[in-house]
Amino acid sequence: MHERDLNESLRTLRRDLHQHPEPAWREFYTTARIVEELHDRPLTDLRVGDELFGSERAGVPDEGELERWRQRATDAGADPDVVERLGDGATGALAVIERGPGPTVALRVDIDALPIREAETDHRPAAEGFRSNNEGHMHACGHDAHATIGVGVLDAILDSDFPGTLKVLFQPAEETIAGAEPVAESGLLDDVDHLIAIHIGLDHPTGEVVAGIDGFLAVRQFTARFTGESTHAGRHPEDGYNAVQAMATAVSNLYAIPRHSGGATRVNAGRVGGGTASNVVPEAAFIEGELRGETTELLEYVHERAEQVLHGAATTHGCTVDVDWEEWAPSARSDDDLRAIVAAVAADVDGVDSILERDDLGASEDATFLMQRVQDHGGTAAYVVIGTDHPDGHHTPRFDVDEESIRIGIDVLAGAIERLGTA
Amino acid sequence: MHERDLNESLRTLRRDLHQHPEPAWREFYTTARIVEELHDRPLTDLRVGDELFGSERAGVPDEGELERWRQRATDAGADPDVVERLGDGATGALAVIERGPGPTVALRVDIDALPIREAETDHRPAAEGFRSNNEGHMHACGHDAHATIGVGVLDAILDSDFPGTLKVLFQPAEETIAGAEPVAESGLLDDVDHLIAIHIGLDHPTGEVVAGIDGFLAVRQFTARFTGESTHAGRHPEDGYNAVQAMATAVSNLYAIPRHSGGATRVNAGRVGGGTASNVVPEAAFIEGELRGETTELLEYVHERAEQVLHGAATTHGCTVDVDWEEWAPSARSDDDLRAIVAAVAADVDGVDSILERDDLGASEDATFLMQRVQDHGGTAAYVVIGTDHPDGHHTPRFDVDEESIRIGIDVLAGAIERLGTA
Amino acid sequence: MHERDLNESLRTLRRDLHQHPEPAWREFYTTARIVEELHDRPLTDLRVGDELFGSERAGVPDEGELERWRQRATDAGADPDVVERLGDGATGALAVIERGPGPTVALRVDIDALPIREAETDHRPAAEGFRSNNEGHMHACGHDAHATIGVGVLDAILDSDFPGTLKVLFQPAEETIAGAEPVAESGLLDDVDHLIAIHIGLDHPTGEVVAGIDGFLAVRQFTARFTGESTHAGRHPEDGYNAVQAMATAVSNLYAIPRHSGGATRVNAGRVGGGTASNVVPEAAFIEGELRGETTELLEYVHERAEQVLHGAATTHGCTVDVDWEEWAPSARSDDDLRAIVAAVAADVDGVDSILERDDLGASEDATFLMQRVQDHGGTAAYVVIGTDHPDGHHTPRFDVDEESIRIGIDVLAGAIERLGTA
Amino acid sequence: MHERDLNESLRTLRRDLHQHPEPAWREFYTTARIVEELHDRPLTDLRVGDELFGSERAGVPDEGELERWRQRATDAGADPDVVERLGDGATGALAVIERGPGPTVALRVDIDALPIREAETDHRPAAEGFRSNNEGHMHACGHDAHATIGVGVLDAILDSDFPGTLKVLFQPAEETIAGAEPVAESGLLDDVDHLIAIHIGLDHPTGEVVAGIDGFLAVRQFTARFTGESTHAGRHPEDGYNAVQAMATAVSNLYAIPRHSGGATRVNAGRVGGGTASNVVPEAAFIEGELRGETTELLEYVHERAEQVLHGAATTHGCTVDVDWEEWAPSARSDDDLRAIVAAVAADVDGVDSILERDDLGASEDATFLMQRVQDHGGTAAYVVIGTDHPDGHHTPRFDVDEESIRIGIDVLAGAIERLGTA
Repeated sequence: MHERDLNESLRTLRRDLHQHPEPAWREFYTTARIVEELHDRPLTDLRVGDELFGSERAGVPDEGELERWRQRATDAGADPDVVERLGDGATGALAVIERGPGPTVALRVDIDALPIREAETDHRPAAEGFRSNNEGHMHACGHDAHATIGVGVLDAILDSDFPGTLKVLFQPAEETIAGAEPVAESGLLDDVDHLIAIHIGLDHPTGEVVAGIDGFLAVRQFTARFTGESTHAGRHPEDGYNAVQAMATAVSNLYAIPRHSGGATRVNAGRVGGGTASNVVPEAAFIEGELRGETTELLEYVHERAEQVLHGAATTHGCTVDVDWEEWAPSARSDDDLRAIVAAVAADVDGVDSILERDDLGASEDATFLMQRVQDHGGTAAYVVIGTDHPDGHHTPRFDVDEESIRIGIDVLAGAIERLGTA
Repeated sequence: MHERDLNESLRTLRRDLHQHPEPAWREFYTTARIVEELHDRPLTDLRVGDELFGSERAGVPDEGELERWRQRATDAGADPDVVERLGDGATGALAVIERGPGPTVALRVDIDALPIREAETDHRPAAEGFRSNNEGHMHACGHDAHATIGVGVLDAILDSDFPGTLKVLFQPAEETIAGAEPVAESGLLDDVDHLIAIHIGLDHPTGEVVAGIDGFLAVRQFTARFTGESTHAGRHPEDGYNAVQAMATAVSNLYAIPRHSGGATRVNAGRVGGGTASNVVPEAAFIEGELRGETTELLEYVHERAEQVLHGAATTHGCTVDVDWEEWAPSARSDDDLRAIVAAVAADVDGVDSILERDDLGASEDATFLMQRVQDHGGTAAYVVIGTDHPDGHHTPRFDVDEESIRIGIDVLAGAIERLGTA
Repeated sequence: MHERDLNESLRTLRRDLHQHPEPAWREFYTTARIVEELHDRPLTDLRVGDELFGSERAGVPDEGELERWRQRATDAGADPDVVERLGDGATGALAVIERGPGPTVALRVDIDALPIREAETDHRPAAEGFRSNNEGHMHACGHDAHATIGVGVLDAILDSDFPGTLKVLFQPAEETIAGAEPVAESGLLDDVDHLIAIHIGLDHPTGEVVAGIDGFLAVRQFTARFTGESTHAGRHPEDGYNAVQAMATAVSNLYAIPRHSGGATRVNAGRVGGGTASNVVPEAAFIEGELRGETTELLEYVHERAEQVLHGAATTHGCTVDVDWEEWAPSARSDDDLRAIVAAVAADVDGVDSILERDDLGASEDATFLMQRVQDHGGTAAYVVIGTDHPDGHHTPRFDVDEESIRIGIDVLAGAIERLGTA
Repeated sequence: MHERDLNESLRTLRRDLHQHPEPAWREFYTTARIVEELHDRPLTDLRVGDELFGSERAGVPDEGELERWRQRATDAGADPDVVERLGDGATGALAVIERGPGPTVALRVDIDALPIREAETDHRPAAEGFRSNNEGHMHACGHDAHATIGVGVLDAILDSDFPGTLKVLFQPAEETIAGAEPVAESGLLDDVDHLIAIHIGLDHPTGEVVAGIDGFLAVRQFTARFTGESTHAGRHPEDGYNAVQAMATAVSNLYAIPRHSGGATRVNAGRVGGGTASNVVPEAAFIEGELRGETTELLEYVHERAEQVLHGAATTHGCTVDVDWEEWAPSARSDDDLRAIVAAVAADVDGVDSILERDDLGASEDATFLMQRVQDHGGTAAYVVIGTDHPDGHHTPRFDVDEESIRIGIDVLAGAIERLGTA
């Protein structure tokens, strides 16, 4: 039987993770903390490091940056041995409980944070002393709660008669869409019969559960680098080819790509920069952006138009542009059978007062790589939302979760896993 | 009598300075190296530190940044005592030779470098081993040569019968237009009868001397900070107010400010940036830019139009903008009498084959603050150009000087100072 | 029983209307031709002129323009008496058959054309000699077919035992969203029990029928007029405030209004202009545009953002802007009961091979004003699509209809009206 | 002896011309009025029509437009015989007085007006009843005064002992830079020893004369036509390629072409337009613009950059662009000898109180084609400015001239011609 309130040790874990947010491939403290937490549980296996990944991990920062975060992690008390085992940012962990002949079920939770500066006022983590220690970074998407749910579900299954195998994946680098694909390529989930991935919140209140999300937006990230020619801005402006003007023209026109009647699309020039000094005509500028589409076809439409914009903007200012089309994630859908089980279990969980069979995400998730992999190997998959009252939107400085919903999430997911064991 | 080639110790000095370029208020190594070089000369006085500045120094970086450059300087061999005397970036030096009742003459040379990455190929400093050690910074405007000329002129006057007082100002922070104004405010040059400021190159070849520049562009720098609202770029783009779009709109339209029939104007958005991650609608963005005008009135015209653009662009995207109107420098003109003396002396200098009485700068210089100060106190001033063959333009990665021109510069300036002593 | 092929006189009518396309409030020839066609039918009533409209008609052109089109109409053979009765552009007609105590059913067809130049090649109307005589205008949305269906349905009901009242509204000015609202305000449809509005095509092929459209986009049109100050572009560019630059900035940024996660939005700067001569800085410029939203709330969102863009763009260039927020149309939905009857009847119509219960329009229609009016007075309404093979998209120079679908439309609609009479 | 005030008949002529402003190649009334005015003068020759032009006249409007202006001219009282002789817009006239063996002197005055709507208030022509009858067109650059000066000079020379040949050219189509080149090509001025072209005003007050202008801006006009693909803006925005977006991007970036340190440049997108209806994505758009440079090289610089902008902007939106590089005019300079004579004569003219030897125009003039032609054939040329108090700038709705300056102009020019006859 699961307790009614989130128990104290999980609350402490969640707040500790919240206080140490780390971006993609830099989750050294987070991974070490999870490993430490699970240390005395009777797990069959707990894997970390390179073996989790079956293909190249994209977007790994340079060694200087990695070292800075390793240092920060150990300064904050992370176990140096675990940190060392994570090598050049091979963060995350896979916890396994093997019981016997029952089905293999996987739960995927993600653990990375965002480059957002956390609010200092009108914000519970600030008021109660667990605001980010890593200034400029923040758990503004609830992955601290996700990791905590992962640990809580392991506890609950250890306590249960579940007869099969449970794999809980603590996945890094979701925000950069970089973590799931190499994990999928590792084959570690190829034997999974049922995969559940989760998210907290998404505008659903505490007490509401969405049994299975469809309508993921396919997404592709890119970096465009504009190159022109620098010159003294006062003496010979005519000798320059201004990469910042090219970038600005591209930004304005990327957002102006025509909407598509076939469904939702998105464009964002999320990070930009250029130039070196106020009296030098800028030689270089960049856009780190992303495109999304309700389907892969819609994503391709936006992609094609974005190519035109980027090259046209460069030409306009006599510059060139190199575009790296980087990480992407496909669309996916939740299986009806699995969805039905989650919905049925949720109906009996204390504190759940609203169950939606399905919903659109209106966003992207690299969990779709894992869902597709499992589905391609004959398994089923569902992406479940555990509602939480969040005072402000995801990816904003005042995002926070209602910790009660962590307990609900554990109950729903552990219940669904047990039910799958009896099927 | 001065030697015909640049002597070996000055060449070594110039190349050492070239190898250690430092931006505004971070000229720790440079200042220490100059102090060390002058250490055994029989100077009357050699001042460094806060006493050089009579008003607030603008644009001083934060302590973390200062400390990084201090460290770098001492790592490269700078005298830690000198570095310490420079406090929080009070760099530069004033060397004084006092002989007697003759006139007081001042020579101003600037010593700071630029945030430009120096070329690695087809570039003599790279080929001959004195390319920048401070990756991403470069002496791309010849201030290494200026400092060397300052030292050479001190030597020459020490060797001469000049009967008055010579003050050589090694000025920091010219590129950010921040150094000259607080020096002017110190009053240290209020007793100067004749001020000569210099620049090397400016598209004049080795052997050409411009006796006095007019036509400085007045200049004003600014930083515009746009603030919007962040949101998840996929889930709720409608909740965001995109500061990068506002910035891009401003960039495009700043350059499009109407030309003025009254004379030259310039606009540059020299450094820009914004946003945090590709999936977050950017909440903040900035432009570090500058405006110039052939006269102060023209500068005011561009300033007024730029205000409209910056606020209009912010409004367009539901953002706000704060604009810091930062450093500026006025226009100025060289005095005819002083110009005539420089021209007369230059005619007799070995290696000079072309003398221009005057020329336009087509750029800006905070030396104009010093020139105005001296002129306001009854003195005369001239801004002299010592031609040098430079393989590529100022403020570009392959800028370099012909070291022969350093020797010419020393001869012309020392000659002019001696002549002023006999007048 | 209705004939299998479109009869010859209706084909002739359709092609004649196609050859004389007239834009909003200028449908003089079209109205006169319909009146002439119906002249010898035993109608109870045939109304034209001011009495059709219960509130001000928006967007009526000036008298010069009206007179030009009146002249063109009578030159093409329109009855001058009818043309005169249409006054200052009070075009359109209401045909009434009153039989007895049965229900009152209304059919709404629209009759206006678009300012598009019709293709001359690869286009059946060109090949078969009924290409537009009004160069620069074209029936590129099938309203010629709509009007023909209206006449055909009158014929079929005259031939039938339908026991109630039928009102066929030949509505002007649909493309400018200006015609339906004043007709609704007239009260002429307040006694209607069932209203059917129709459209042909919309990417549905010949043989397909959509029994009722939901998902109209709410729409609002606007005209923005930018005012700056003119000046000689060569002599004193600085004295100007350039309205064309303001307009261009607005256009770029209107299309870049953030997408909304709540549903589809649209922006279009459909007609723009500005300036007078190449050597004058433009004092005036305009945008005629439109905004759409899947709901009224979404429309309001785009509206609010567009206000910011228009005013911000004006400020950016020292201009002012006046915005007329013009015609608009709400969203609406088809009633299920009426939809079911249309679907049931269509199933028996010769040539119909696919029936969709519902579909999204993905566009706007001022028929929604009429649907809401009837629904508000206790009646039901449906918007029916009669599929047609169209070689190119609506609002393009090669749009055309398959005339077979006109016959199908008449059969489906007359059938549904008869069925309503027996209910 | 010339009279002190402008005589009544010339004032009447000027005001009549002012009231009938006509744009390039449509100066039917203007030409006819000048011919009528000169009818009873004892001229040697008065030529009109095709023989004035030696090469194709650019920018002649279509016959419909020509006929409209012919009609307007005859309605206003122009002699139909003269209008007929002007054919398809071969407007303008050449008046000749041949006396004997003295030098051949030419005076060039231009006669066309601008597409500007004349002010109705605070404007003397409106107050005194000679505001433009051709609504939307206006003599906003003083060519009505120029033509009047041409007539007045003919009178003065007829009254004088001038012993040579005088040719007064009433040139059409100056504002479109289209008139002078084909006249130059006719060879009619190849025998000219001295050519004087004039302009009134240009910010010089009544009583000031500029003996010779240098510093004409070279100019080139262009028309850029963008072509995309239209689509219904609501249903399928993704199918369109938006020519108005391409045009707007081009406008914003044309004005943002980098300034040139070598001298003044100008850019103007003086007239733009695009699209057909608010609900159609625009398929076509255009820019009628012009570029200027202080030298031909500067013009070429702007031209090259503008090409990049136009093509880049088209690419950005998936459109194509065709650019017609149209009329242009070179730079030119006034000859010193001729300038000296004008200055000397002006010094003795009643009402002249300030004489400038030279000035920059800061604008363009197709008179440079005639000046070059005469200079190439061994003659001399000068471009003279007759100051006039003008209440508002050239090319603005409240531009007006001080009629006293017309008298001064006649005295200065007739005096200079007489002086040339005695040389």
